[in-house]
Amino acid sequence: MAGPPAAVAAVRVAVRAVLRDLPNGSLVLVACSGGPDSTALAAATAFEAPRAGLRAGLVTIDHGLQDGSAERAADVVAWGAELGFEPCEAVRVEVGARGGPEAAARYARYAGLDAAAARHGAAAVLLGHTANDQAETVLLGLARGSGARSAAGMAPARGVYRRPLLELPRATTHAACADEALPIWHDPHNVDPGYTRSRVRAVLPALEEAAGGGLMAGLARSAALLRADADLLDDLAAELLVRVTVPDPAVPDGDFLAARRHRTLDTRTLADAHPALRGRVLRRWAIEQGAPAGTLAWTHVDALDALVTRWRGQGAVHLPEGIEVVRANGILVARHVARRFVPR
Amino acid sequence: MAGPPAAVAAVRVAVRAVLRDLPNGSLVLVACSGGPDSTALAAATAFEAPRAGLRAGLVTIDHGLQDGSAERAADVVAWGAELGFEPCEAVRVEVGARGGPEAAARYARYAGLDAAAARHGAAAVLLGHTANDQAETVLLGLARGSGARSAAGMAPARGVYRRPLLELPRATTHAACADEALPIWHDPHNVDPGYTRSRVRAVLPALEEAAGGGLMAGLARSAALLRADADLLDDLAAELLVRVTVPDPAVPDGDFLAARRHRTLDTRTLADAHPALRGRVLRRWAIEQGAPAGTLAWTHVDALDALVTRWRGQGAVHLPEGIEVVRANGILVARHVARRFVPR
Repeated sequence: MAGPPAAVAAVRVAVRAVLRDLPNGSLVLVACSGGPDSTALAAATAFEAPRAGLRAGLVTIDHGLQDGSAERAADVVAWGAELGFEPCEAVRVEVGARGGPEAAARYARYAGLDAAAARHGAAAVLLGHTANDQAETVLLGLARGSGARSAAGMAPARGVYRRPLLELPRATTHAACADEALPIWHDPHNVDPGYTRSRVRAVLPALEEAAGGGLMAGLARSAALLRADADLLDDLAAELLVRVTVPDPAVPDGDFLAARRHRTLDTRTLADAHPALRGRVLRRWAIEQGAPAGTLAWTHVDALDALVTRWRGQGAVHLPEGIEVVRANGILVARHVARRFVPR
Repeated sequence: MAGPPAAVAAVRVAVRAVLRDLPNGSLVLVACSGGPDSTALAAATAFEAPRAGLRAGLVTIDHGLQDGSAERAADVVAWGAELGFEPCEAVRVEVGARGGPEAAARYARYAGLDAAAARHGAAAVLLGHTANDQAETVLLGLARGSGARSAAGMAPARGVYRRPLLELPRATTHAACADEALPIWHDPHNVDPGYTRSRVRAVLPALEEAAGGGLMAGLARSAALLRADADLLDDLAAELLVRVTVPDPAVPDGDFLAARRHRTLDTRTLADAHPALRGRVLRRWAIEQGAPAGTLAWTHVDALDALVTRWRGQGAVHLPEGIEVVRANGILVARHVARRFVPR
C-alpha cells in the first residue's frame, strides 16, 4: 500500500509528535491564515488529531487590514468546516499602531488566539511557523544586537502554543499543499517590501546559496542551542538578582511583591558577577521596576552597567516610563519621576 | 588646527585603545596583507605606537598561492619600511590542503604570525578584521549550527592577538585609506565566488539593506554578548566535567594527566545536568579523549547525549580518530579502536 507523498508524511509526523502528550479527548486548535504553511498544518492536524484521540478546531484571524479580509476568513472557515474542524471560526481583531505595523498585527493576532483558546478550553494552539520563519526571526534578532534570547528565535512550545513545523523547510509545506491540492492564499504582506521581514525573506535564498546550503537548518539548530543557553543563564540571573538585593527593613517579611517593587541592588556584589549575568540581572531589575521589556535597549542596560562597573560619579540613568536610576552609597535605586504637568 | 579626517581618527582611536596596557618600550607587530583594512591599521599603528612609547613592527604573509605574491609582499615591506616599521618583513608560508583552501591558508598564516611574534618577542600582534568580517564570521558560524561559541565570532583579544577594528565598519577603513592616499591592493580571493566567505560577503549588503540598516553593528554586538555567555557556560561546563567524573582508583593521586586521559563519566549525574551544560561537557570530554575539535559535529555530541539521556541499550558511538564510546553500568567509557591493518 502506498503511503502519502513524502511532504505530506513529513508534516503529519511533525504534528503527531506535538500531539502525543495531550490528554485524551482534549481540544487542539489550529491557527490558520489560509497561507500554505498553516493550511498544510491544518490538513495534517485534521488527519492526526482524531487518530490521537483529540478534537480538532480551527481559528482564522481577520486582521481587517486588507480589502476582502472578511471574505478570505470566511473561505478558510468554510474549508475548515468541510475538513471537520469543530469549532471552526473567524475572529476579527482590531490592529492598533503601537510598535509599528508588524508588531501591532502580531499583538492583535495573539490576543485573538489567546481569547479563542480560553473560550474553547483548548489544550494546545498549533502555529504554522517553519524553519524559514525561524531563520528570518534569528537574523532579525541578531540584527537587533540584543543577545542570546533574541538570537534563539521562536520557542517550539510556549504556554498553550506549539510550533510543530519549526524544523521543516517552507518547501515541505508548499509541496504538501500541492500534493493534496489544498486551496492556498498568498498573503501580499509576505512579499510587501514595506515590511522588514518580507525584505529579509527575499534575501535569504541568496544567503543560503552563498553559505553553501544548510543555512536554514544551521540557523534553526543554532537557535535551539542558544535557547537552552538563554534558559540556563536566565535562571542563574534570577538567583543572582536575589543575592545582590539589599535587604529593606521597611518591607515586612513575606511581602514578596513589595520586596520586588522596592528592590535596591548592591553594586559591590554585582560588580564581581560575571558580565553575562550582570547584564541580565540589570535588565530583569529594570523591567521589575516598571520599564517595559520591549522598550529597553542595550544602551539602557549598558548605562546601568556603567553605574556598577565604571563608576565615576555620573548622574541618573533614564529608563523608559519616567524611571530614573541613581547610585547612592554603592546602592542602585530606581525612582519614578512624576511626568511634567502641562496645563491646558 | 584641523585634526585628521574622521575615518583616520576613528581608526587611530581604536588602535590607541588596544595599545594602552602594553609595557613601555615593548614591540607591537601589525599583520598587513596590503589590503585596505590592514593598511589602514598599519598606518594608524605607525602613528600611535611611538606616541604610546611602543616600538612598531610589520609582518606580511606570503601565502605563495597567487602569481606575483612575492612581489606583492615585497611592496608591502618597502611601504612599511618607509613608515618606519622595524622589524618589517615578509614571511613565506607553505599552505597545506587540510580542511579546505580557506582553513588551510588561515592555519598557515597564523603559524607564520605566531613564529614571527615569538622570534621578535612581540607583546601584541594586531589584526585588521572589521565589523564586516565579524558579521560574516557570525553568519557562517550560525550556518554551521554549532552554538554560542561559533556565533560569538572572532575574539577582540586572544593570546598575543588583538583586533582593534572589530567594531568599525569596512567603509571606515576604506575611507581612511582614501583620505591618506595609502597604496592598497585588492586581494582577488576576497571576491572569488569559489570561497564561501566571499559569496557571503557579496550578499551581506543586500541583507543589511533588507534589515533596515544596523545589521553589521547588531551582529557585532550580538557576537560580543554571545561571547560573554559562552565564556561563562564553558567555565561552568569545566566544573561540571570534574563533578561527573567517576574516580579511578588505578590512577595515582595528583597524576592529573592520567586522570584526564582515562576519565569516565557518570551518566546518572550528567543526566540531571542542564542541557546547555551537558552538551558542552560531552564535547569537552570527547576532545580530551582525542577527537580533534574541528572534526566533532553536533551529530557526534547528540549521539553521546543519547547514551546519557535516551538510553535504550544502543551500541557504541563512533567519534573521529577511531574513538568509540560505550555506556556500561551507567558509565561512559571511551576507547581507541586500533585501525585495521591492511597488508601491502
